[in-house]
This record gives sequence, C-alpha cells and structure tokens, in this order.
Amino acid sequence: MVNIGIVGGTGYTGVELMRLLTAHPEVNVKVITSRSNAGTLVAEMFPNLRGKVKLAYTEPGVDSYKNCDLVFFATPNTIAMTQAEALLGAGIKLIDLAADFRIKDIAIWEKWYGATHACPPLVEQAVYGLPELNRESIRSASLVANPGCYPTAVILALLPLLKHEMIDPASIIADCKSGVSGAGRGESIARAFCEVSESVKAYGVGGHRHLPEIKAVLQTVDPQADLVFTPHLMPMIRGLYATVYANAQSAGSNVQKTFEEFYQDEPFVDVMPAGSHPETRSVKGANHCRVAVHYLAESNKYIVLAVIDNLVKGAAGQAIQNMNLMFGFDESTGLDALGMIP
Amino acid sequence: MVNIGIVGGTGYTGVELMRLLTAHPEVNVKVITSRSNAGTLVAEMFPNLRGKVKLAYTEPGVDSYKNCDLVFFATPNTIAMTQAEALLGAGIKLIDLAADFRIKDIAIWEKWYGATHACPPLVEQAVYGLPELNRESIRSASLVANPGCYPTAVILALLPLLKHEMIDPASIIADCKSGVSGAGRGESIARAFCEVSESVKAYGVGGHRHLPEIKAVLQTVDPQADLVFTPHLMPMIRGLYATVYANAQSAGSNVQKTFEEFYQDEPFVDVMPAGSHPETRSVKGANHCRVAVHYLAESNKYIVLAVIDNLVKGAAGQAIQNMNLMFGFDESTGLDALGMIP
Amino acid sequence: MVNIGIVGGTGYTGVELMRLLTAHPEVNVKVITSRSNAGTLVAEMFPNLRGKVKLAYTEPGVDSYKNCDLVFFATPNTIAMTQAEALLGAGIKLIDLAADFRIKDIAIWEKWYGATHACPPLVEQAVYGLPELNRESIRSASLVANPGCYPTAVILALLPLLKHEMIDPASIIADCKSGVSGAGRGESIARAFCEVSESVKAYGVGGHRHLPEIKAVLQTVDPQADLVFTPHLMPMIRGLYATVYANAQSAGSNVQKTFEEFYQDEPFVDVMPAGSHPETRSVKGANHCRVAVHYLAESNKYIVLAVIDNLVKGAAGQAIQNMNLMFGFDESTGLDALGMIP
Amino acid sequence: MVNIGIVGGTGYTGVELMRLLTAHPEVNVKVITSRSNAGTLVAEMFPNLRGKVKLAYTEPGVDSYKNCDLVFFATPNTIAMTQAEALLGAGIKLIDLAADFRIKDIAIWEKWYGATHACPPLVEQAVYGLPELNRESIRSASLVANPGCYPTAVILALLPLLKHEMIDPASIIADCKSGVSGAGRGESIARAFCEVSESVKAYGVGGHRHLPEIKAVLQTVDPQADLVFTPHLMPMIRGLYATVYANAQSAGSNVQKTFEEFYQDEPFVDVMPAGSHPETRSVKGANHCRVAVHYLAESNKYIVLAVIDNLVKGAAGQAIQNMNLMFGFDESTGLDALGMIP
Repeated sequence: MVNIGIVGGTGYTGVELMRLLTAHPEVNVKVITSRSNAGTLVAEMFPNLRGKVKLAYTEPGVDSYKNCDLVFFATPNTIAMTQAEALLGAGIKLIDLAADFRIKDIAIWEKWYGATHACPPLVEQAVYGLPELNRESIRSASLVANPGCYPTAVILALLPLLKHEMIDPASIIADCKSGVSGAGRGESIARAFCEVSESVKAYGVGGHRHLPEIKAVLQTVDPQADLVFTPHLMPMIRGLYATVYANAQSAGSNVQKTFEEFYQDEPFVDVMPAGSHPETRSVKGANHCRVAVHYLAESNKYIVLAVIDNLVKGAAGQAIQNMNLMFGFDESTGLDALGMIP
Repeated sequence: MVNIGIVGGTGYTGVELMRLLTAHPEVNVKVITSRSNAGTLVAEMFPNLRGKVKLAYTEPGVDSYKNCDLVFFATPNTIAMTQAEALLGAGIKLIDLAADFRIKDIAIWEKWYGATHACPPLVEQAVYGLPELNRESIRSASLVANPGCYPTAVILALLPLLKHEMIDPASIIADCKSGVSGAGRGESIARAFCEVSESVKAYGVGGHRHLPEIKAVLQTVDPQADLVFTPHLMPMIRGLYATVYANAQSAGSNVQKTFEEFYQDEPFVDVMPAGSHPETRSVKGANHCRVAVHYLAESNKYIVLAVIDNLVKGAAGQAIQNMNLMFGFDESTGLDALGMIP
Repeated sequence: MVNIGIVGGTGYTGVELMRLLTAHPEVNVKVITSRSNAGTLVAEMFPNLRGKVKLAYTEPGVDSYKNCDLVFFATPNTIAMTQAEALLGAGIKLIDLAADFRIKDIAIWEKWYGATHACPPLVEQAVYGLPELNRESIRSASLVANPGCYPTAVILALLPLLKHEMIDPASIIADCKSGVSGAGRGESIARAFCEVSESVKAYGVGGHRHLPEIKAVLQTVDPQADLVFTPHLMPMIRGLYATVYANAQSAGSNVQKTFEEFYQDEPFVDVMPAGSHPETRSVKGANHCRVAVHYLAESNKYIVLAVIDNLVKGAAGQAIQNMNLMFGFDESTGLDALGMIP
Repeated sequence: MVNIGIVGGTGYTGVELMRLLTAHPEVNVKVITSRSNAGTLVAEMFPNLRGKVKLAYTEPGVDSYKNCDLVFFATPNTIAMTQAEALLGAGIKLIDLAADFRIKDIAIWEKWYGATHACPPLVEQAVYGLPELNRESIRSASLVANPGCYPTAVILALLPLLKHEMIDPASIIADCKSGVSGAGRGESIARAFCEVSESVKAYGVGGHRHLPEIKAVLQTVDPQADLVFTPHLMPMIRGLYATVYANAQSAGSNVQKTFEEFYQDEPFVDVMPAGSHPETRSVKGANHCRVAVHYLAESNKYIVLAVIDNLVKGAAGQAIQNMNLMFGFDESTGLDALGMIP
C-alpha cells in the first residue's frame, strides 16, 4: 500500500481527492492537513465521508508527511513551491494540484501569479501531468504539476489537430464554460448562490491565468500555437465545457478518423460519433473527457467540443491518474466510476 | 456470475441500475428491454455509459429473460404483475421497483392504483424489500417489492420510535421534499426545467400513492400507526428529505442513544450526532440514509430528519441491496460509493 | 413627493427596495447609506439599476436622513434600535426591516437576539407591519416593525383559522421552505452556490428567531396559540413555502369559503381554488401571497399552503405596502408587478 | 386604447406578452387564442396572472381578431404566414414573434425551415423589428418580423463595429449561451429539469436557424459579413449571453467611445464601462441589452459581450417596443421594469 498525504484538504479538490481515494485499493491516506481546521474530523466537515474516513485534519508541516510516499498539494497557489524541496529531499513524491510548477518560463509565471518563485530549478524538473501528452515522463517523475481544469479540456481538444498540423496554430479561440466549483471553496460573495444561480457571465477576458499555461503547453507541440481564451461562469456545480475554434489548414481530411485513432488507446478520452454534442453531465463525477469534432465547410473551421468534470479530470481524478502512473498501478485504478445521469 | 435482466431500461431508475451494476463484481447485465427503443444502444441514450455498456435495448417479453437469474422491473406500475408469474415459474427471481407488490391489501392497492390486480396470490408471497425491516425474509425471497422513495425515508425515520413505542403512533406528520427525478423520465410539461426550477410546490395533498404504502408498512410494526403525508417538489435533480413529526409518549428518554443502537449494525443507515441537520447532498449518488433525531421539550414532540438519494436508496441502490441479500453476496457489494460533495 | 432614506443598502432587501421604489410614482430615494461602500455608485454594485439609479452610497449617520420623510432600515438586527429615537424625534418615520421592534416582550427578544434592547419604550409604540392584521394602526404609525419572511407566510396561512376558532391553537406545525436569499448577502461558505445548490436541509430545528415572533403575533389573536416551526433551505434564489398543519376543531365547516371571505378585500392575498397547490414561482418578484387550504377528513386536520417571495411580500414589498398606508397612498402603489413565469 | 390579440398564448412568449402588457397603460388585450386550451382561463394555466387577467383562451381564427388593432403571433413557425394576408387586408397590424418574415431570401428561408413559404410578397413588405437598426421603418410598418433571441444579442453586439468598418466582416465568431426558456414550452424530454439542470451543451453546431437570420441582417449593413454561430444550452430559465469575436481592422481606435456614442440615445442598450463583464441576471425580466466591448491587443481582436433576457428583449419585450413605435407611443411605455437581482 502506498501512503498518501494531502495538504490543504478543506477545499473542493481536497474533499474530491478523499472521496476518490477511498475507492482506490492500493493506497492509504495517512495524513490530511489544514491549518485552520486542525483537530476537526474530515467527515464532520464533509459528511458524505462519514463512516469511511476516520481521519482528523492536522497541522501542516513538512514533518507531517514523513511516512508518506506521495503528497498531494490541494492548496492555493504558491504553497507547494515552498515545501517541495524538503519533501523531494526526503524521498517523497509530490503532485501539485495548484499552479506552482505548470509553467516552465519563470518570468511568465511570476508575471501572472504576482509572486517570486521559490524554487525555479524544480520547475525545470517538474513534469506537466497530462497523461495523454506526457505519459512516459509522468511514470518516472517525482514532481508532477497537475494541469488546470481549463487547460486539460482545451489541450485535449486540440492535440490531434496540432500534432497532425491540421490547423493554423495561431488562429485558436477557446470559449470555455465552467461550473462554480472551479472557483474553489471559500467565503465569498462572488460565489454565493444568489449571485451566480440563474445567470451566466464571462470573466477574465483581459487575461486569465490559464491562458499562459495553455499557450505554453500547446507550444511544446507547435511553437506557433497561440490562442484567445475566454472563460465563463455557469450556474452549475461541476462541469467544464470547451468550445474550441481553429482555421483548418487542410479541408476535406477525415478529422473524425484522426481523432478516433489519436485517442483510441486512451482510457479517459472518449471521441464521440461524428455530429455529436457532448454534455457535461455525461462526465459528472467521472474522470472522462468526451470530445466531438465538427468541420464547418463554409468557413473552413474546425470546432472541437470537449467536456470534463472540472473536479475530476480537471483536478483530483487526473491527479490520481498521475499517481497511478508514478507508482506503476493500472492507470484506471480507482477511477472507473461513470458519469451520473441524471 | 449472476445474470441480470432489466425491463424498462430507459427511465431514470433503469439507467441508475445500469450505472451501479457496472461497478458490481458479481453480476452481468445480459438483457435490457424497451419497447419503444429496441435496437438503440443503451450508451447512445445515456452517454455516461459509453465505453462500459455495449448492450442495445431489445424488445420486452418473457422469453427475453430466459437466461437470467434475476429480473429488475424498472417499469411503470401494473407491468410487473402481468409477467411475474411466468418468470417465477421459470425459476427467475424478480425485484419490482414499481408498486405492484408493495401493498398487501388488494382492495387498497386497486383503489389507489386504479387497476385490477393481475396476481393477488403473488402479492401475498412478495417481500417488502426494506432490508432494515425485513432482512431475513428478503434473503429467501423470490419476489421482492422494492419500496417507494418516500416510504423508504419515512419508515427509516420512524422505525426506532415505533418499535420502542416512544410516540403516539397516530400522531405522525411526514412533510417530505423530493428532487424532480422522483417523478421519472418522460415527455411532460410538468417536469420541464422552466416549470420546476426556481420554485417549490406541494402536490398530492389530498392523497399520494405512497401514503397507503407507508401506512401499511408502519402498521406491520404498530397497528395503530397512522400519518399525514405531504410531498413537495424541489428544484433539484436528486435527493429526498423527510421531516417527520410525532408526539412523544415518554419525554426525557435518550432518543439519540435509541437511534444509534437501533441502527448500529446497519451498513446504510447513518445516525448523525445529536443536534444535526442532514443535507441531501451528503448522499448524492450513494445508497446511504442519514438520520438525525431531535426532541422538542416545549411541545413534547420528536422531529426526525432523514435524507436519501431517491434514485439510489430510494430505488436502484436499494434494489441492488436486496439482490445482494437474495444471492448471498455481501450486502454492500457494488454499493460503496460515497455521496458527492460538492 | 415623499423623500426616502435607506440604511444598509447593500444587502438583498436594500437592492430590492431600490428596484421597487424606482417604479413608485410618489417617492424619491434621496439617500442610501453603507459604511463599507460609501462613495460607490449603487448601480455599480447592482448593475440591474444602471440608467435608473444615479445615487452613490454615503456614510450612515442620523444627519444623513434629515431631509427624509421616511427611513427604511435594511440593516442587520440591532442597528435600527440605536437610531430610532433620534429619527422619530426629528419627525422622520421609520420602517425597520430587521427584527428590533417585532417582539413586544423585551425579555424574549433579548433572549433570542442575544443583546440588550436599546429602546424598550419604542418597542411598545411600534406597530407590527402586517397590513392584513394591523392595517389601521399602520396608517397612523411612525414606527413600523416589518415582519419576518417566515412569519408573514405562516401568519397569513393561519389568520382565518385562528380568528374563526376553527383549530386547536396549540396544535400548529409550520414546516417552511425558503430560498437562499432569505439568508441575506454576505461572505459565507454556507450560502455558496456549491454548498446549497442541488441540496435541501432543515436548519434551526432547535429554535429559530422567527419562532417567538410568529408565536407572539398569533397570541395577539388567540392567547393559546403555539406552534412547532421548522425552516428548510431550498436550492432557489427567491420564494418561501409554508406548509402549515393544525387539528380542526369543527369538521365539515366550509373552510374554503371562510378563507375566500376573510381575504376578499385584500389586494395581496390570493385564495386559490379548493384543491390547489400554489407554487412559489407564481409570486416571484411580486408582492402577492397565494394561499390554498385543504381539509383532511381522515385525520381531521387542516393543511394550509402559503407562498410568498421572501424579498417582496416577505421584506421590501411589504415595507412599501406599509409605507403606502403610512402616507395615505393607495396601498398597491408601485406594487402591481406580477409574478414572473417562467 | 389599442386593442390587442395574441395568437398562441400558451407558450412562454405568450405568457410573457400577457405579463408585460398588463403593465402597459395604452393597450387592452381583447383576445388570446389557443386551439388546445380554448375555454381555459389564462390565469388558470399561468397563476402569476391571477387577479389581473380575466380572459379565457378562445379558438384561433382570423375572425377572432376583427376588433383588434394589432395581433401578436406567439405561435410556432409557419403559422403567421398563413393568416397575415387576411389580417393585413382587414387593416390589422401584425407582429410575428416567430420566423416567418425574418429572412428576405425565400429560398434560404425555405431551406432552413423546411416548408414552402405561403406569402413571399409579404416577406418583402415586412420590417425586421430591431428598433436599433430599423426604427423609422418600424414606425410606419404594418407587418413586423420580431427578431430571434440570438440574432438580437449578436447584431446589437456587432452593429457599431460593422457600421464603423472596424472589423474584418467575414471573421466573426458568435459563441452564444441561452437559458432553457429559449427552447419554448412543450412536452419534451430534452427540456426536462433532470436533462438540462447541472449540465451545459452546445447544439446545432452544424447549423442553427438563427445563423441565416443573423447573416442576412448583418449583410444589410456590410455585404461581406459572415459568421460562425454556436448556440449552447445553459442550466437557467432566462438569459442569453453572446460572446462575439472578430478580427480588428484598425487597432488602437477608441472602441469604447465608439460604442458609447453609437448607443447613447438608445433606451434599451446599455454600454457598460471599459473592462466590464455583464451578467445575464442584470437584465432578468427587463427589456435591456447590456454590452461590453474588449480589445485584445495581442491577437488584434475585439470581443463583445452582450446579454439580454431571451423572453423580453429577445422576444415579448422587443415586440412591445415595436408596437410602441408602430402606434406612436413612447418607445419605453410599459417596459421600464428593471432586471431582478438577486
């Protein structure tokens, strides 16, 4: 059994990790920390875990994780980077669900996150944890930067087109829609039920932190890649929809077949039949990404529709998928739940 | 492996059975029928099942189930009663998720369901499938009447009080609130998003079919039991809340301890700490029932709060729990998913 | 034109007052205060008011209101009581939408609100602003205690029964369901979208501050009146549902006719036809209360169903109705909007 | 007083017309028809209208409207075109809220609507009822084609850019999000609460009927205009969000000032401050369109965000705005309600 620590376990990615890991046969969560809730039972804060999770939150601190083989950081940005060196030095692997290790260019990271990076050399070493892109590197990684929710969906929508040079890489527009849980858990008027229910809005049009992340990853595939990215907030708890537009380079190619072949061995990417319109609910609670690709002859554009559950494939589920790779488990272990309809 | 048939697999209890049974290690779903959708792939209608469920709907008919050990009827009322005899005669066990076998008194059943019962002798033989009440009878049953969603929550809220004679059995008021999925899937204006979202309403105040069911079952525990039952429709997909009031017979008794002891060995009934207010979301997608009991000294009343997921413990999950008992599996097999928060 | 001040204009009752008063032909809102948002345009915080409302928030303080004829307190509890004396002394009328003047018994008020009351004599003088109960007193009042949302619905449901002595006044159970806006606007995890959407819960079973308010008002009608009151939180923005149970004293009386006659001249109470089930959406945004009464012969109980919009008839709309009475306007002025379906 | 008829009054645009027209001081609704509900009181079907609307539905038929000055067709497509000639011949004006008269090119209309047009000459005569584009023609029109909901938002987002030749007119992408009421009222699984709540999906990617409408109207401004249009379904009742992308022709121009000047005299188009992100809830129940324009220097693109209530500015409210113009009333009469927050 692999021993697990979770840092910052009171947010939505923290409780989702707990929910998913209780169904994983190869791991034990040994410690879960929270500065403000130390001493509280996890199942008191999240009663869905009653009966299965006996742990209480404990004070965070590098010592807490000394019996762990792997630590998940489900913390706000800029926390993991201060503790990563000590943990790795103690032989503990680390998956950061925040953004500290996602962007290789430190200057860009510092500009978007408004902080000085605490350990640039580890950023170099970190592997971007999108298995569909970096599976082999993840297997041997000690430090994995778990992708953001928007980047996961947008990159999976674009990989086949970019890798096959089927689009103008600089023409991408990603119009994305996310459920409210993507904004995290915390005291806030902006996330209040009465503020976001029965309403839709764009946000961060001038610039959202997931933009440089998406761009940097796409440029590892095609250095010319560039995009416009517009996130929107939807009145739902979970689910993320990416509607991605790009100008076709080569009209008439069989894009449906390209997608099906590209993802045929992927356990968690499902290419839907030609003409499909995926729904976010089809992946609610599941680690799947469903993708449908359309070619518009009149405008010579591709539209790719991709859906994920932002808390699963967009966060905790993908982190566990990465963990499975890092520890040699079957990649799907603990992740076989299906989406919940209705 | 036990071979399973599902009749009427296009409703919400049907797809929920499919979702849950794919995670059950001891069974194979061999056939799923639907008259109007014969030939359609199940996963085409419910894309959350893509990749896991290869079956297509087939025409219903007793012959279809000849290789099955157990058939679930996820049909409207009055269907199972016309086929039960043939199936049981062929040695096939049957769990009816509709109401055909729930009420022993045929005259009462016929009054509330507006039909002549097709097989009164089988009603006599059927076991009411609430494991917390009838576990041993279910183990040896061939025909199980799976309880209604409201009855499940209301009866579990009352069992400790009734069995310990702690309340006036004729003073019960059950004010219940259900998500929309309890009304089933079908073309309907009444269940349209724009009709039920952002609104609450009572319905069936003059009489709801679950009233005689609850009353009949409670009277097997205490012949004096009687109740007022008011269902309400809530703007949410899943979840059922029962707020149950009853006049206390014996003030001052330790009702918290009574509940805890009564349910201490139950895998799916969770008695919350004194003073708790359970939330339906804590059981979303899970087979659990969470119960909290309050004693109001001023009015000498008990208030019991009980929550279930109407599609799981209130339908498909409980049916699988019954199946586990009928086939000697561990009662929790395939049912260990936790509620999904958020 | 009557000049209006609003204290505490950044909450939901504050913005609802602004929205409704812009449609009122006889008043001008001259000042709206907020300590934390002084200097901010009201329409910047609430963009629905853009183009109609030019005011900015100003610092609160008794001087601010010196040109006002009437001041609404849309503040938290315990604010109005500290300023009422000065305002009334300056000849300014006052409607408190919080609870400072709702309960005549100071000891009870202090127990439930955990504070020492600042001006008991004014409590004596204040009129409880339920027009259907106290219309004539409101006309001549200088200080009106605007009722709570739950009390409004529950009392309107019970008035005909209590006044006609048709029920056992001590047998009342009020099972109530409210939208989230009833909890106010503020930084809070408890009111976050991801915490309350797709879920239902009871709260305050052990005791909610609206209980003593309802009880005290009902006892002005019948000194024996007593009740159990259970509030529940619903996943919707607006709307309040009261399901009220009471034991009938006199079976067979024509309760439908009693209700229709009792409320026949009321502009804002609509008695629905016999057998009806009102929906909260039928009063969304409107000042109406819709009521339906059912008699259950088997249990000899009445069930009254009452719906209001908690922010309109349950708060800001009723406050304006009171204002209309206090200033001799037609009672419905500015309040003729209909409920919004869908 | 102007006498009004409504054909097809049982859908959401029909009830919205009723709700809004009851607040209009210059009109009387004399007749409202519905074949399937003739004889039913309108307020029985839509209880929000109780107390204000005494009409019952009557059988449709040209004779029914003989005392009307204006008839609104709130019917499905292809109904108005069969009755328009008779009504106009009788001197009755007509506003069609469906699509029969929106597209001048009959061949295109017939292709997208799958029907033979019944009266092509009237299409020629009809005025497209977007006051911000065609105000003067509407004043003198007898037959107005009320715009679709998506076209209203998309065209208002683009008019300043197109008229000032600030964009490449063939580079437009309109990614739109609509509440469920846009799909109308009717028996349907697709619009059921349990199918669309807690989920998002694109639809009609291959081609939606509003595409040729938008394109045709934009081409009256710039013959080179062309666009990609992707509608999405959101889990909310009302509200429509248009996120419109276009390549800038002339970087650096003051697009904010252009928008503000373009719409400065428009009563129902509100240009938000630079950098804004409008929310659909700010126009819930109101006839306003809120617009915000962003310029992205890196990609040299404009993004325009436009929100409307699909049932008001996107349907019934705009129809009344057109009526006001046709009858010489102040354009805002009966339309001054503000958006409802929360």
